[in-house]
Amino acid sequence: MALIVQKFGGSSVADAEKIRRVAGIIADTYCEGHDVVVVLSAQGDTTDELIEKAREINPKPSKRELDMLLSTGEQISISLCAMALEKLGLPVISLTGWQVGIKTNSNYGNARIKSVGTERLRMELDQRKIVIVAGFQGTNKFDDITTLGRGGSDTTAVALAAALHADLCQIYTDVEGVYTADPRIIPSAIKLDEITFDEMLELASLGAQVLHNRSVEMAKRYGVNLEVLSSYVRKPGTKVKEVTNMEDTKISGVAKDSDIARIALIGLKDEPGTAFKIFRVLAKSNINVDIILQSVGGDDTKEISFTVAKADMDAAVQALNENKAVLGFKDIDVSDKFCKISIVGAGMIKSPGIAARMFEALYEANVNIHMISTSEIKISVLIDVEHAEMAMQSIHKKFFGV
Amino acid sequence: MALIVQKFGGSSVADAEKIRRVAGIIADTYCEGHDVVVVLSAQGDTTDELIEKAREINPKPSKRELDMLLSTGEQISISLCAMALEKLGLPVISLTGWQVGIKTNSNYGNARIKSVGTERLRMELDQRKIVIVAGFQGTNKFDDITTLGRGGSDTTAVALAAALHADLCQIYTDVEGVYTADPRIIPSAIKLDEITFDEMLELASLGAQVLHNRSVEMAKRYGVNLEVLSSYVRKPGTKVKEVTNMEDTKISGVAKDSDIARIALIGLKDEPGTAFKIFRVLAKSNINVDIILQSVGGDDTKEISFTVAKADMDAAVQALNENKAVLGFKDIDVSDKFCKISIVGAGMIKSPGIAARMFEALYEANVNIHMISTSEIKISVLIDVEHAEMAMQSIHKKFFGV
Repeated sequence: MALIVQKFGGSSVADAEKIRRVAGIIADTYCEGHDVVVVLSAQGDTTDELIEKAREINPKPSKRELDMLLSTGEQISISLCAMALEKLGLPVISLTGWQVGIKTNSNYGNARIKSVGTERLRMELDQRKIVIVAGFQGTNKFDDITTLGRGGSDTTAVALAAALHADLCQIYTDVEGVYTADPRIIPSAIKLDEITFDEMLELASLGAQVLHNRSVEMAKRYGVNLEVLSSYVRKPGTKVKEVTNMEDTKISGVAKDSDIARIALIGLKDEPGTAFKIFRVLAKSNINVDIILQSVGGDDTKEISFTVAKADMDAAVQALNENKAVLGFKDIDVSDKFCKISIVGAGMIKSPGIAARMFEALYEANVNIHMISTSEIKISVLIDVEHAEMAMQSIHKKFFGV
Repeated sequence: MALIVQKFGGSSVADAEKIRRVAGIIADTYCEGHDVVVVLSAQGDTTDELIEKAREINPKPSKRELDMLLSTGEQISISLCAMALEKLGLPVISLTGWQVGIKTNSNYGNARIKSVGTERLRMELDQRKIVIVAGFQGTNKFDDITTLGRGGSDTTAVALAAALHADLCQIYTDVEGVYTADPRIIPSAIKLDEITFDEMLELASLGAQVLHNRSVEMAKRYGVNLEVLSSYVRKPGTKVKEVTNMEDTKISGVAKDSDIARIALIGLKDEPGTAFKIFRVLAKSNINVDIILQSVGGDDTKEISFTVAKADMDAAVQALNENKAVLGFKDIDVSDKFCKISIVGAGMIKSPGIAARMFEALYEANVNIHMISTSEIKISVLIDVEHAEMAMQSIHKKFFGV
């Protein structure tokens, strides 16, 4: 008998029929003799509908009141799911974030979990109840409701699994697991049986939107065994662990990230401190920079290019222009017509030649590379967005044969 | 400067425009220098929609989970209303039942308030914030969410007013106050400036659905000054107090109650203990009996008739039939074609002849009386339902001249 945390996202509980399906999965797990803690998101479009209700009244509501509003979404999901399990004759109880004792900081809208109470959970589990917990929410030191921001319910699930020392944390999604590439782009993509935390982190940050980075980071830190699997197809998914058995696998996936804008500062003075000044300006505006490229121009000038998330593009340009005199660039060039293609693999470190094979695949597909970035387990290239699919197919074929 | 509790019902906050109107009333009160605590119900049909969602999944959900579900309705209202006040630039905070510390017993779906915390409320009021509280909800000793049942938000408002020793508790509705009769039946009905708690209690229990009895009873017990007024028309409503100045007013209103079923037990043995046995059976089934009439039949038998709420009719008949042998009646006659017309007035005690005038009015309208019941401040008659309007008009004209 194990203790299993199961998380279901908003699309998995979107309507009565889907809630019944989810209840079936939970019931099966429980009836196999396991203790089950379930974490749910708000139903389907509930969160968007609530945000729309708020905007009608106040386009800029305080984040505190927005969290008060949005947290009702998960509360509706958990009570409905509990009712579905009651219908199956199983002992069940739903608990909100504050009832569990999920304590966060006061960063409304994007709060961090500080601690998780286990007393109430243990008490209910000891009575062999299925416990359904509202994801995405907690309370701060004032007892005010906070929400955890993007990927919040995954984070709740991992935090509960860590606090309860659960044997497994299952993240149910609408895909069957983690693939070597997005199956919508590469239909021949292969489902992975296992993947390491680090690989998963790189894939998540590269746009493979299966798991949010925060939850993977937390799982890695607390050694929580994750499994990503489908709420529609009953078969094993992808296990995310510290170390996998797949020693011989060089790379575990190809990922695409189109949420990229490239900014180039042209005509910078070629003197020490230029880069430092630029990236300090951006850091002060809370803008994350990804790939950076520096090249020499004519007339003792140089050019610095870098990529940011599309959402940060305008803010970045504004911050740079406001500091134009200090930074001393002549021109600024902005484009969001690029995308980033990456290969990820923990086995990469021990295998020379991986980068060469990737570039070979791109050459064969006649794709021009604008920027390159590498880490221990990742190689990324910036290419024109219209070449994205061709590039991914060629790389996937090169490494996986299909 | 006073401390005022204002309660707005579901129809007053049904959409964005109505919430803005409510926010305007609150803002005006606050800007006059008062401290304001607001209690809100769920928006319009939200509660019904949530119940429908539940029924789709489980026609008989546990009351505990139903309360978990329904309590989200008020949470949505309070956050939206707080946002509307933020838009007006006013300091405001919304609080759920558990955040305020509204403690109830564990009777899910119809819980009773046991205590109200004032610490958080005082803290926010001390900072000159408008405090918006979710009505209808509290938590029990397990920290589980409970709801207060019918009239729950009125009860929350009065409980907060009592706990905070508020100067006034205003109940905003879609009518301008308490009338001498239902204006939909008697268009010439007169709005009362004042009314006593006892009169209000009789009127509420007689079907004048302005205030729920629970809240009036609580207001009477804790000496909370109530005012019933309109959320659409800005003018004084009706004050509900312990003693009013209207010494000369004999009666304060005429009320109709159509939620009546009459049950007659025919051919009972005319011996001691018959009535006791009958009403013990009903009490055991938790059925409230209103008017009781006993008459002598032929052959040493008697007949006992009484009225119950329509919802209890089938249960009453079933309970009586199950005990037919013990009770020893020959026949049972049931009808819901009656209604109860009552006149209410604290001045009645000191004024003989009130009953005679009421019966005279009914005689003039050619209305037959089936049963009569009187209390210190009330006279009720049971008549055929199709005579209801005629009877009310005649009585209203007799006492109020219009």
